[in-house]
Amino acid sequence: MKVLFCGDIVGRSGRDIVIREVPALRVRLGLDFVVVNGENAAAGFGITGRICEDLHAAGVDVITGGNHSWDQKDIQAYIAQDKRLLRPVNYPPGTPGFGSGMYETAARKRVVVINVMTRLFMDPLDDPFQALEAQLKLHRLGATADFILIDVHGEATSEKQVIGYACDGRASLVVGTHTHVPTADARILPGGTAYQTDAGMCGDYDSIIGMKKEIAMPRMIRKLPGERLAPAEGAATLCGIFVETDDRTGLAVTVKPLRLGANLEVSDL
Amino acid sequence: MKVLFCGDIVGRSGRDIVIREVPALRVRLGLDFVVVNGENAAAGFGITGRICEDLHAAGVDVITGGNHSWDQKDIQAYIAQDKRLLRPVNYPPGTPGFGSGMYETAARKRVVVINVMTRLFMDPLDDPFQALEAQLKLHRLGATADFILIDVHGEATSEKQVIGYACDGRASLVVGTHTHVPTADARILPGGTAYQTDAGMCGDYDSIIGMKKEIAMPRMIRKLPGERLAPAEGAATLCGIFVETDDRTGLAVTVKPLRLGANLEVSDL
Amino acid sequence: MKVLFCGDIVGRSGRDIVIREVPALRVRLGLDFVVVNGENAAAGFGITGRICEDLHAAGVDVITGGNHSWDQKDIQAYIAQDKRLLRPVNYPPGTPGFGSGMYETAARKRVVVINVMTRLFMDPLDDPFQALEAQLKLHRLGATADFILIDVHGEATSEKQVIGYACDGRASLVVGTHTHVPTADARILPGGTAYQTDAGMCGDYDSIIGMKKEIAMPRMIRKLPGERLAPAEGAATLCGIFVETDDRTGLAVTVKPLRLGANLEVSDL
Amino acid sequence: MKVLFCGDIVGRSGRDIVIREVPALRVRLGLDFVVVNGENAAAGFGITGRICEDLHAAGVDVITGGNHSWDQKDIQAYIAQDKRLLRPVNYPPGTPGFGSGMYETAARKRVVVINVMTRLFMDPLDDPFQALEAQLKLHRLGATADFILIDVHGEATSEKQVIGYACDGRASLVVGTHTHVPTADARILPGGTAYQTDAGMCGDYDSIIGMKKEIAMPRMIRKLPGERLAPAEGAATLCGIFVETDDRTGLAVTVKPLRLGANLEVSDL
Ligand SMILES: [Fe+2]
Ligand SMILES: [Fe+2]
Ligand SMILES: [Fe+2]
Ligand SMILES: [Fe+2]
Ligand SMILES: [Fe+2]
Ligand SMILES: [Fe+2]
Ligand SMILES: [Fe+2]
Ligand SMILES: [Fe+2]
Repeated sequence: MKVLFCGDIVGRSGRDIVIREVPALRVRLGLDFVVVNGENAAAGFGITGRICEDLHAAGVDVITGGNHSWDQKDIQAYIAQDKRLLRPVNYPPGTPGFGSGMYETAARKRVVVINVMTRLFMDPLDDPFQALEAQLKLHRLGATADFILIDVHGEATSEKQVIGYACDGRASLVVGTHTHVPTADARILPGGTAYQTDAGMCGDYDSIIGMKKEIAMPRMIRKLPGERLAPAEGAATLCGIFVETDDRTGLAVTVKPLRLGANLEVSDL
Repeated sequence: MKVLFCGDIVGRSGRDIVIREVPALRVRLGLDFVVVNGENAAAGFGITGRICEDLHAAGVDVITGGNHSWDQKDIQAYIAQDKRLLRPVNYPPGTPGFGSGMYETAARKRVVVINVMTRLFMDPLDDPFQALEAQLKLHRLGATADFILIDVHGEATSEKQVIGYACDGRASLVVGTHTHVPTADARILPGGTAYQTDAGMCGDYDSIIGMKKEIAMPRMIRKLPGERLAPAEGAATLCGIFVETDDRTGLAVTVKPLRLGANLEVSDL
Repeated sequence: MKVLFCGDIVGRSGRDIVIREVPALRVRLGLDFVVVNGENAAAGFGITGRICEDLHAAGVDVITGGNHSWDQKDIQAYIAQDKRLLRPVNYPPGTPGFGSGMYETAARKRVVVINVMTRLFMDPLDDPFQALEAQLKLHRLGATADFILIDVHGEATSEKQVIGYACDGRASLVVGTHTHVPTADARILPGGTAYQTDAGMCGDYDSIIGMKKEIAMPRMIRKLPGERLAPAEGAATLCGIFVETDDRTGLAVTVKPLRLGANLEVSDL
Repeated sequence: MKVLFCGDIVGRSGRDIVIREVPALRVRLGLDFVVVNGENAAAGFGITGRICEDLHAAGVDVITGGNHSWDQKDIQAYIAQDKRLLRPVNYPPGTPGFGSGMYETAARKRVVVINVMTRLFMDPLDDPFQALEAQLKLHRLGATADFILIDVHGEATSEKQVIGYACDGRASLVVGTHTHVPTADARILPGGTAYQTDAGMCGDYDSIIGMKKEIAMPRMIRKLPGERLAPAEGAATLCGIFVETDDRTGLAVTVKPLRLGANLEVSDL
């Protein structure tokens, strides 16, 4: 199977490049499934049902989230009834929506997507390690699932690496999100799981993590509130990771970073 | 000028690859100056005078530090008297050692190295922005300095990017350290400063940020103290960034990530 | 001299009790000077010029702040021109307003008020220790000032205690704010400085740190955004600390906590 | 029933006052049960089996812990086999020891003690709210238990207050520990649960949260490692809270802070 994951979409600029590129990428790369993290898609803060529809129309199968999942008020009703929009699985019981789902590709392959959030330097959620163990007991790669993708939304590289190795051999791809900067460590772990510490954002990199420099910089330097943060509006870079698996095992045989667009060094396939 | 910066050296494995590769890289790439971050060189915790000597013998001109600078007790005396070992400039007045230095290359070029630490999710130090403004008033690129290198030791990508843009046009290179994972965002900012959010570590990547998985993983998962963390001992990757500047301005004309060794995708020049 | 300090005023309930009680307390206790922390006076978030005027009319001489000082937009212009409203002294240079001031009582005594913010678990500001050393070089108790009051706005008890002892003998009173809970450790330190780790809030204690339980509790338990936090509206407790000094030295001879109103055990003088 | 809870014992000085005072307090106050937090009893870091025995011999029925529970290596074996030493209940499954226990008094009353840790500014543990709900489903005050005591080990006043109100009416006493400073907010919440945000430490208050000033102060001010922290050795204050309940309901009818010893204002019963 061939799967593409793209990191945090930030604002209109990020949405535009995903909506423009994904249809062509599906064809050119022969993709079976596409997952994107959409926690900053709506002007940098959360996502709306309307944006979800636009992304699905462009060929995005599933959208994951993170600490910004709840920024748009109406999303709680939407996420409760559409399993193609996930939020981290380790929110406490009773949280609207789902933290994982199983989906079927056109070729009837079963893809499991799990969204989890780390805790170092993040909000205190339920234990991501226990949550993943429960998920990986439910979904067994090569048995009940053909592809298992885990979006690890978090800050600390150490915690993301622990999750990568903890799931090694039991997932097809463990990929980080949240820092909005792609890491150059895409590789296949010893047990066969593709891994990258952060996928990077889909957005304008001539910015502070996707936000306009002229607003974000004085806020951080002067420690005073100012204008509300807003996404930078220049040309975006799509940042993602491509994985091809062995159909018999669901484990990765190829992993490649994908970077298309302005500012960053292009990495095409 | 041609300058190489390498990220956090972790343990013996990291030291070995730096000591083995730097002499050849100096020749092959025609390097004028080499800087490495050494805060984890001594078994993962700090650095010793002996290790500094070994690194200098291999062609490392200047060694920078970070939150781990002080882990080895005897280093306070050493750092006070050898300006080739720096610690972050924004420690409070009275801290042993120096946060910046001016050095002369064999070709009599003046290189300024500044080591600074960020504050989000880090120890509370003096303001890095004020500290850098003071340094960049003292050292003017193209006037009093031929190359200005700033090692931004820190966690949050946003804060590192703010520093990058705040220094854009006034430094040759702003490069991050501390996360032990190389980022794939090497580029030249609009004002001419080369930038990469994190250089990545020089160490064994089959590990948790350079430390043995079998010790680091249970500590994070179980929340109990265990065996003391120790560096992984497998083959290392050297991670760094190469910059070539325009001699008239000191600004970057070329920036390239460098990754040599095991586990990560090789990026040679 | 006799001085009263009251902790964080939270919302209307907190303003009401301060405005109602301070005039009588000034007479009954023979107070020379009254300082209150007002960072949560305006519906829990910041303070307005109008509220400052009301407090001054009730006999409050100086108002201090903290991390919430800037929550109300118009306050930046107000604080820049009225030295009776302070903000922490260790904001970076260029911040509107003042972090300390010298004031004269009716009896022509010179009172210095310094507002400082700690850093553990707080925003990264300039070093509070250096800032206080500079202030205490400028203002010398018993020489250039008859009373020196330091409001230490912060979270960690350890950092507040370090500041207390670091200033011991050089200030009349070091008192903490920010946690909204009064501590039971009012005492005179060995060098003669009155100290209390936190003054407690002036507000409705049948609440979560002054905010309505029905809003604050689900937000913390469920980890989802909800209704905007709003101050509890029940009867308030005024929490403060009373200090009497030796006029020759400016050091404390008496320190007493003051708690008047609902919910908490009353501690009157 | 009459129960006494004492906050974090720090070092020898803290142990001495507890061992000296508790036998007399049991008699004088007619105590049915005594609980102390012992996480800093062994030279400030953790506790040993030997110290537990000494405390039990002095009349301490149960000892609770916190983030320092594991500082002494041998304690993992001890805590696994002696239910009179608790650690926070919200450590992940598989953690040695117990987070709660039911004990019988001499008069055959059933006392339940629960130890829980908060998460704001603390290590990321399992959800304390879910953990407490599970405990309070198991143990019902007035039905299966005559007294329920909850030691909430944590930093943020807001989170402790949320726990207090969340358990109101279902516990006899919710009392905080960890900040090492007693708060002056002992009271009975509307539902009948006695509450105090922090019990304060049992230790030498002429110190930085129980540790020698001459070591703790330079460490915080200079940001350099120095001598290992060690407990202050002067005369201690015992800090605790006394609760009397209605035998029919298990709810509090009286709550009084207790402070005996040097430095702090004495509050005896
Ligand atoms: Fe994001
Ligand atoms: Fe995020
Ligand atoms: Fe490092
Ligand atoms: Fe570091
Ligand atoms: Fe406040
Ligand atoms: Fe505050
Ligand atoms: Fe403690
Ligand atoms: Fe603690």
